[in-house]
Amino acid sequence: MSSPEPPAPPLRRRGERMRQAVLAATVELLSSQGLAGATVGAVARAAGVHETSVYRRWGTRENLILDALTTELDAALPVPDTGRVRDDLLAFFSALARLLGTPQGRALLRLSVEHDDTLVDRRGPYWSERLDRAVVMVRRGVGRGELAADTDAGLLVEALSGPLFVRVLLSGAPLDDALVRGLVDLALAGARPR
Amino acid sequence: MSSPEPPAPPLRRRGERMRQAVLAATVELLSSQGLAGATVGAVARAAGVHETSVYRRWGTRENLILDALTTELDAALPVPDTGRVRDDLLAFFSALARLLGTPQGRALLRLSVEHDDTLVDRRGPYWSERLDRAVVMVRRGVGRGELAADTDAGLLVEALSGPLFVRVLLSGAPLDDALVRGLVDLALAGARPR
Repeated sequence: MSSPEPPAPPLRRRGERMRQAVLAATVELLSSQGLAGATVGAVARAAGVHETSVYRRWGTRENLILDALTTELDAALPVPDTGRVRDDLLAFFSALARLLGTPQGRALLRLSVEHDDTLVDRRGPYWSERLDRAVVMVRRGVGRGELAADTDAGLLVEALSGPLFVRVLLSGAPLDDALVRGLVDLALAGARPR
Repeated sequence: MSSPEPPAPPLRRRGERMRQAVLAATVELLSSQGLAGATVGAVARAAGVHETSVYRRWGTRENLILDALTTELDAALPVPDTGRVRDDLLAFFSALARLLGTPQGRALLRLSVEHDDTLVDRRGPYWSERLDRAVVMVRRGVGRGELAADTDAGLLVEALSGPLFVRVLLSGAPLDDALVRGLVDLALAGARPR
């Protein structure tokens, strides 16, 4: 842009500063004390604002947590473009595994599978938007002839991400680079003898 | 055994009959009204027993639901042995997809990912025991030379089951035979050009 934005009116600026302080306090409490520790009261105290201001802005504790986590994690899953599909997939799904290994990532995934009608419109899209980005890497691999022309890109992304989600939600088994490598190589080469 | 079991004492027999009636009522309520409908009060009324008897035997509503679902679903996932690994995998994971498509299967999976310290010892094992059975099919395929000798059987089972669980828990996308076929063929042949 050629000219700088005019300064925001004081009230608006205070609102945005308040928002950032509250979101930062929420992420900090989620990281240190888990989902149960991030109550509206604790967040408001940590951010130095009134509890009623939090409720006025976010409505429910769940909306607050969701806003905090999506804001925090939004930059955590960039889509690489190395020119080789295996390297792209390894980088992307290793980043997803690392994200799901953090308290914030776990909290967001946990929150995503809990029943709550007030959140239904926003939680599903969070994960599906991020996985839709991954589909691009597969399509580029098909375009370069690295993958079969009839590759179902969405299915491949599900086969790579599903086990990571399930380890967090169900089995508690660890997420490490060996797991991601094993899944990527299985999905690329298959289990048939070579 | 050469001689029949002596008849159970009346009290014990009544206890087992009561248990069966309560479990059947629980499954029925879960199917017709979902997880929220299967309250201890509603179950006790449907089974014609006192609510206190239910609490005395199961302790919590969650234990009751877990007992009912595992008893009901225990025979729902037999491990086939057709002599061909692809057919075995298709049969087993199609049965898992069908199971997860029923209200009972969904309820059990939902219950499995909810935080509840009183259940922690029994829910994880329910799914991992069933998936451990599937590993046998993969090992037989390796033994017959249908799969590479270094196939990671557990990883292959995770790659096939993970997307099914995630569709139920997170995306709500449908579970159908085309999905299972696509996952099995991807895991066997891989996405590289053939």
